[in-house]
Amino acid sequence: MKILVVNVNTTESMTASIGRQAQLAAAPGTEIVALTPRFGAESVEGNFESHLAAVAVMEVVSTYTEPFDAVIQAGFGEHGREGLQELVDVPVVDITEAAAMIAMLIGRSYSVVTTLDRTVPMIEDRLTLAGLYTRCASVRASDVSVLALEEDPEQAVEAIVVEAEKAVRDDRAEVICLGCGGMAGLDERIQQRCGVPVIDGISAAVTLAESLVSMHLSTSKVRTYATPRPKKITGWPISAVRSMQP
Amino acid sequence: MKILVVNVNTTESMTASIGRQAQLAAAPGTEIVALTPRFGAESVEGNFESHLAAVAVMEVVSTYTEPFDAVIQAGFGEHGREGLQELVDVPVVDITEAAAMIAMLIGRSYSVVTTLDRTVPMIEDRLTLAGLYTRCASVRASDVSVLALEEDPEQAVEAIVVEAEKAVRDDRAEVICLGCGGMAGLDERIQQRCGVPVIDGISAAVTLAESLVSMHLSTSKVRTYATPRPKKITGWPISAVRSMQP
Amino acid sequence: MKILVVNVNTTESMTASIGRQAQLAAAPGTEIVALTPRFGAESVEGNFESHLAAVAVMEVVSTYTEPFDAVIQAGFGEHGREGLQELVDVPVVDITEAAAMIAMLIGRSYSVVTTLDRTVPMIEDRLTLAGLYTRCASVRASDVSVLALEEDPEQAVEAIVVEAEKAVRDDRAEVICLGCGGMAGLDERIQQRCGVPVIDGISAAVTLAESLVSMHLSTSKVRTYATPRPKKITGWPISAVRSMQP
Amino acid sequence: MKILVVNVNTTESMTASIGRQAQLAAAPGTEIVALTPRFGAESVEGNFESHLAAVAVMEVVSTYTEPFDAVIQAGFGEHGREGLQELVDVPVVDITEAAAMIAMLIGRSYSVVTTLDRTVPMIEDRLTLAGLYTRCASVRASDVSVLALEEDPEQAVEAIVVEAEKAVRDDRAEVICLGCGGMAGLDERIQQRCGVPVIDGISAAVTLAESLVSMHLSTSKVRTYATPRPKKITGWPISAVRSMQP
Amino acid sequence: MKILVVNVNTTESMTASIGRQAQLAAAPGTEIVALTPRFGAESVEGNFESHLAAVAVMEVVSTYTEPFDAVIQAGFGEHGREGLQELVDVPVVDITEAAAMIAMLIGRSYSVVTTLDRTVPMIEDRLTLAGLYTRCASVRASDVSVLALEEDPEQAVEAIVVEAEKAVRDDRAEVICLGCGGMAGLDERIQQRCGVPVIDGISAAVTLAESLVSMHLSTSKVRTYATPRPKKITGWPISAVRSMQP
Amino acid sequence: MKILVVNVNTTESMTASIGRQAQLAAAPGTEIVALTPRFGAESVEGNFESHLAAVAVMEVVSTYTEPFDAVIQAGFGEHGREGLQELVDVPVVDITEAAAMIAMLIGRSYSVVTTLDRTVPMIEDRLTLAGLYTRCASVRASDVSVLALEEDPEQAVEAIVVEAEKAVRDDRAEVICLGCGGMAGLDERIQQRCGVPVIDGISAAVTLAESLVSMHLSTSKVRTYATPRPKKITGWPISAVRSMQP
Repeated sequence: MKILVVNVNTTESMTASIGRQAQLAAAPGTEIVALTPRFGAESVEGNFESHLAAVAVMEVVSTYTEPFDAVIQAGFGEHGREGLQELVDVPVVDITEAAAMIAMLIGRSYSVVTTLDRTVPMIEDRLTLAGLYTRCASVRASDVSVLALEEDPEQAVEAIVVEAEKAVRDDRAEVICLGCGGMAGLDERIQQRCGVPVIDGISAAVTLAESLVSMHLSTSKVRTYATPRPKKITGWPISAVRSMQP
Repeated sequence: MKILVVNVNTTESMTASIGRQAQLAAAPGTEIVALTPRFGAESVEGNFESHLAAVAVMEVVSTYTEPFDAVIQAGFGEHGREGLQELVDVPVVDITEAAAMIAMLIGRSYSVVTTLDRTVPMIEDRLTLAGLYTRCASVRASDVSVLALEEDPEQAVEAIVVEAEKAVRDDRAEVICLGCGGMAGLDERIQQRCGVPVIDGISAAVTLAESLVSMHLSTSKVRTYATPRPKKITGWPISAVRSMQP
Repeated sequence: MKILVVNVNTTESMTASIGRQAQLAAAPGTEIVALTPRFGAESVEGNFESHLAAVAVMEVVSTYTEPFDAVIQAGFGEHGREGLQELVDVPVVDITEAAAMIAMLIGRSYSVVTTLDRTVPMIEDRLTLAGLYTRCASVRASDVSVLALEEDPEQAVEAIVVEAEKAVRDDRAEVICLGCGGMAGLDERIQQRCGVPVIDGISAAVTLAESLVSMHLSTSKVRTYATPRPKKITGWPISAVRSMQP
Repeated sequence: MKILVVNVNTTESMTASIGRQAQLAAAPGTEIVALTPRFGAESVEGNFESHLAAVAVMEVVSTYTEPFDAVIQAGFGEHGREGLQELVDVPVVDITEAAAMIAMLIGRSYSVVTTLDRTVPMIEDRLTLAGLYTRCASVRASDVSVLALEEDPEQAVEAIVVEAEKAVRDDRAEVICLGCGGMAGLDERIQQRCGVPVIDGISAAVTLAESLVSMHLSTSKVRTYATPRPKKITGWPISAVRSMQP
Repeated sequence: MKILVVNVNTTESMTASIGRQAQLAAAPGTEIVALTPRFGAESVEGNFESHLAAVAVMEVVSTYTEPFDAVIQAGFGEHGREGLQELVDVPVVDITEAAAMIAMLIGRSYSVVTTLDRTVPMIEDRLTLAGLYTRCASVRASDVSVLALEEDPEQAVEAIVVEAEKAVRDDRAEVICLGCGGMAGLDERIQQRCGVPVIDGISAAVTLAESLVSMHLSTSKVRTYATPRPKKITGWPISAVRSMQP
Repeated sequence: MKILVVNVNTTESMTASIGRQAQLAAAPGTEIVALTPRFGAESVEGNFESHLAAVAVMEVVSTYTEPFDAVIQAGFGEHGREGLQELVDVPVVDITEAAAMIAMLIGRSYSVVTTLDRTVPMIEDRLTLAGLYTRCASVRASDVSVLALEEDPEQAVEAIVVEAEKAVRDDRAEVICLGCGGMAGLDERIQQRCGVPVIDGISAAVTLAESLVSMHLSTSKVRTYATPRPKKITGWPISAVRSMQP
C-alpha cells in the first residue's frame, strides 16, 4: 500500500525527517510518500499558521495524481483533518489523535510534551474535538521551537526530558506523547531517560493507517465527512501563488 | 467606530444582506464595512469549504488598508476566529459565539436552527471549543441550503419555524439562535411564529463588538492569540490565484 | 434608556461607587440608577448573607415605581438572578456572568480574583449554573474583605495583583475578572500591573444590558423564568422590618 | 434526638403531612418537629418563591429556641441549604440530595418525577450543584401543582405514575424519586404501580440525618460553610412583616 | 437486622478489626457478621488482586446459609459491588461510595487519603462509575501499605495526617475520607489532628445499609442488577481450591 | 508474532468462531491462539458473570506456558483488562476499546449495537473508564442473547440491522460497532444493509495489538499497571475446581 505523509510546514528537511520516521515504522510493502505543502509557514506554531497549513495540506493532497491508500496529517494539534476527510475517500489519520490512542492502550493517562507554550491550547483543542482529552494528564511545553528541534537535537532532548519527568512525577502521566511531527526519531532516546513508554505520533499514525487499510475501512461518508456538494469555488486548487512577507 | 463584517462565502448578494443587517443593529456612529472573501466557496457548508473560508477571511482582513476597530466573522460554526485573533490587534467576534452568549443571558437553554444537517457537527464543535455548549439544548437542521435562504425566503422561514418549534417543545429550548449568517433579517418573522426570543448572530456580534470597543478591551496577547512570530511564509497574503474546478 | 444597578449589600458608599463605575461605562443616553437594598448585610461574603441579598434585591426592584429598561445584579457570585428574571419583564444581567462572557470573547481562559476565600465556591457555582465555567482557569482569593476594598484601596490593589499574576503564570489565565462589585474602578490600575486585560463586572454588565435593550430582547418567559403564578404570599414585599443582632 | 423538618411553603396542612411522613420514617427515639415558615408563598414553584423560602426557612430555624440535632430542608429543588449550613452547627439535609443519594445506592440511574414543568430546571440545578446529577436519567413533570397534591391525591398518583413509567421505559431509570415534599406518603402506592423502587425525599432525609447524628458528624466549618463573620445586618431575623398582595 | 461485612482480603485480623468498627457504628439491634473471603490476596492493592477479591467476596456471600438483611463490601476502590447486587436481593453498599456520600452531605468537597499510590486510580474509577467523583477534590496516597496499617498504626496515622493536611490546604478539601477498610478506627485520631471531619467508610456503609433496610428499600432489579439469567456455569461456587504460589 | 485471543465464556464453539475471525484479520506471520477459560458462564451477560470471567481469563493466560506477544480480551464491555495488564508484560487489548478507537478514526460519532439490554450499562462503563465515551452516540441492544448469535445468525443479523439503522437515523451515529465478541464475522453483512462502516471488535483488537507489538510498545509499568507486589495469595491460579449448580 502507499501512504501519503504530509508535512504541515514548508521546510523540506523536516519533510525528509518525517518521511524517514514514517518509513521506519511502516510494514514491509508499505510505501511512504512524504509531501511538503506548496505554501505556508516554515514552521507552524499558532492558529494563523495552522489555518494556512490546513489549506496547503488539502491542496497538495488533492493535486497528487497517483493513487494512494491513506493520508497522514503530520502536524501535532493542527487544523485540517476534517477537511481532508471530506476530500478523499481513503482513511485520514492525524498524528495527535493517533498518538493519544496508542498511549491510551498502554497507560491509564498520558501527557504530551510539545514545542512552544502557545501551541499547548491548540493541542488541547484537537484532543477535545477528537474525544480523547479525558485521559490526558497534561500538555507541557519544552520551549524548544519547531525549527530548533532540527538545529540542536541534543538541547531539544534535554528540554523535552525535563518536561516529561515533571509530567510523570507531578501530573501522574504513565505515557509520554511527543507533541510535534519534528520530534520524530527522538522517542527512543527520551524513553531511555524517562522510564515510561514514549509515543512518536508519526509512527502511531502509520500503523493506524495501515490497520484501517488492511481492515478495508475508510471514513464514513454518511454525514459530517461526506464529499463536499458540487458548487462554484474560486481559487481552488491554489496552484499559483505569489510570495510576500506580511 | 468602524467594524468589518466579513462574509465567509464569495456570494456578493449575501455579503450585502449581512451588511444591511449589521448596519441595522449598529449604534449611531458605527460604520459597518461588509467584506467578501476573494476566493473560496459560494456557500460554506462543510469542513473543506470552511478551511478555505478561514484563510480567505484572514486574507481579506489583513489586506484591508484602512483602520478599523473590530472584526466580525460572519459564518456560523466556521473555522478561523482564532487565526484572526492572532493577526489583528482589535477585537474579533464570531457570530456563533455571539449568538450563544446573548441567548444565555435571556434563557436557561438555547437551540440553534441551521441550514444543512452536515453543518450541525461544525456548530457543535465551535460551541464546544468556545466553552458555550453546556446550555445548548440542541442544534437542528432545517434542511434549507445556504443559497436557498436567499432564493426562497418564504420556504426558508417555514422550514426554520418547524425546527424551532420542535426545539422548544421537545428539546426545552427557551431561545432560538439562527444558525447561519444568511438568515440575517429573518429573526423577527420567526419570533412571531415561535413565541420565544430569536437571536440573529450578526446583530449579536455587532453589539458585542461595540461593547468591547467602548470598554477599550481587545484580545489578550499573552499566550494563545499572541501575534505570530516572525518567520518565512510563502503564499501569504494570497493575492493572485488561478481559479479551477476540482 | 434607564438601567437599575442594584448593590447586594446595604453600604451606601459602595452603592455610590458601583453607580459611578456603571455611569462611566454607560453609553450617552443611558441613565444609571444605583439602588441599595433596604435590609441585609453590610457586605455579602457567604451563602447566608447572599440568600438575604437575593430577597432584598428582589424587594427593592419590585418596589421601584418608575419605569426601567434593565436590571443589573451587582454582586459577584451571589444568588438571585433567576428570581429577578421571573419578577420583571426587562433583561436582568448578573455581573459574574457578564464578566465571564466578556472575558471569553478576548481570551481562551479567564481567572477571577475575588475577596475572601470563602466566596470562591459561590463564584464557581454561579459560573457552573450559567454554563460559563469551562473556560475558567481558576477563582482566586486576595483575602481582602469587601469593606476593606473601600477602606484601603492601595493594599487591595497589591493583594489583587499578586493573585492575578499567579493566575496568569500558574493557571494560564489570559484575562482577569475582578470578582467583586466593590472592585469597580480598580481595573485600569490592575491591568497596568498585570499585562493582561482586566474586566470589571459592572462595566461588562452595563454594556451587555444596553446590548439586550437595543436588540429589543428580554428574558424568555416560556418556561424557567415565566412570571410567578398568582398565589397567596405573605410577607412580600417586606416593607417593614425590625433590626436585631443575631 | 430531635430533628427539625422545615416546610418551604406556608401551608400548614402540608407541614403536617410532611411531619407525619418524617415521623413514620424516623427511628424510635427520634422526635420530629415540623416547622412552617412565617412568611413566603403558599406553594413554592419557581425561583422567586424559592428565594423567599430560603430566607424564611433560615429565619424559622434560627429563631427556634430549643436544642435540636439536625435540620431537614423539606423542599425539592429549592434554594437555601448552603445558607442553613452556615447558620447552624448541626447537620443540614436537603431532601433533593437525600433522595438522589439513596436512589444511587440501589440503582444505576434514577429519575425524578416532580410537579410543574417549570420546577424541572431548579431540580436539575440543585442536583448539579450537589454533584449528584451524573446518574440522573431525567427530571419529569407530572403537571400536578404542589397544592393539587393535597386536594386530589388520586389524580396526582395517576399523573405521577404516567411519568414514572415513561422514565423507566424511555429514560432507563431504575429508581424513581418523588420530586416534591408534598408527595410524602405516596411512595408505596406508586411503587406498586411502577415496578421499581420509589424514594420519598422526606424519608430519605430523615434517615440520612439520623445517620450523621449517630456518627457524630456535622458540617465542615473549614471553608464554604463557616459561620458567617460578625457584621452589621439589618432586618434579620425578620420577625415582624406586613402582608401585602403583589 | 443482620448485616454481612465482607473483607476483601484474606487477613483474619483485618476482618476482625473491620467487624469491630462496624459493630461500633451499628445501631442497637443490628448484628454485624464479618466475613473473610476463602481465597485471594492477603491485601488488595491492585487490579489483579481486586478482581480475585470480587469473585471471592461473591463466593463467601452466596454460600452464607443464614438469612441476612444487607451486605457491605469492605474494600475501598475495589471491583465487585455490581456483581453482588445481581446475586442478592438485599441492599449492597460499597464503602467507597458510602464514604463519599456521607462526606458530600457535610462539605462542598472531599478528599480520599489511601494507602499505596497505585490504588489511587482504582478509587478514582470507582467514584467515577458511581457518579460521585465531581465533588472529589483529590485522592492522595499516604504510601502506607494495607498490612502496615495494622503493624504500625502510629506511623500510619502520621503519614495519613500529612496527606490530609495537604488535601485541605492545597486541594481545598473540606472533609477527609479514609481510603482503606483497614483504616477503620483511625478516624477520630486523624480528625483531632486535621481539623476537618473524617469519614471512615465502614461506619458510613453500616449506617447507610441500616437506612436502606429500615426504609424497606433494596436494589432495583429492573435492568442492570437483575438476577443473572439461568445458565450453565462451571466452577461456581468455588468451594475447593488448591493453593499455589504464582 | 503470536497473539492470545481469550474468550470470556466457556462455549468452545464461540472460541472457535472468535479465533477464526481473529486469524482472518491478522497479518501474515501472526499466529492466533484462541483460548477458552476453564470455568465461568457459558455466556457472559451481566456483572456477576463478568467478574467470574475476569478471573477466568487471567487464569488461563497466566497458566499458558509458551511465549506470546500480546493478549486480546475478547469480551465486549467486560471486566478484567486492568488485571491482565498488571499480570503480563506484553500489550493487552480489550475489544470494546479497540472497536471504539477504530470507529473514532473514521467517523465523528459511533454507536454500539449489543446483545441483551442489561449489558448496555456495562459497555457504557467500560467506554467511560477508557476515556472513549464522549464520541459514543448510543449503546443499543438487539435483544439477541449471546448464544442465540450462534444458533440463529439470520435472525441475529436482522435484529442488529434494525438497531443499527435507528442508531444512524436517530442517534446520528456515523459508524457502528458490533457489541459482542460473538458477532465476529457478521460485520460485512451488516455493513451492506446499513450503509455505514461496521467495526468488529475482534478484528480491531488484532490490528491494534499487532501495531503495538511492531512499535515495540507495551503497557506502562510506572503506576496503575505495575506488576503486583509479591504477597501471599491463596487459590491462585485456580487449577482445581468443583462444579456445582447455584
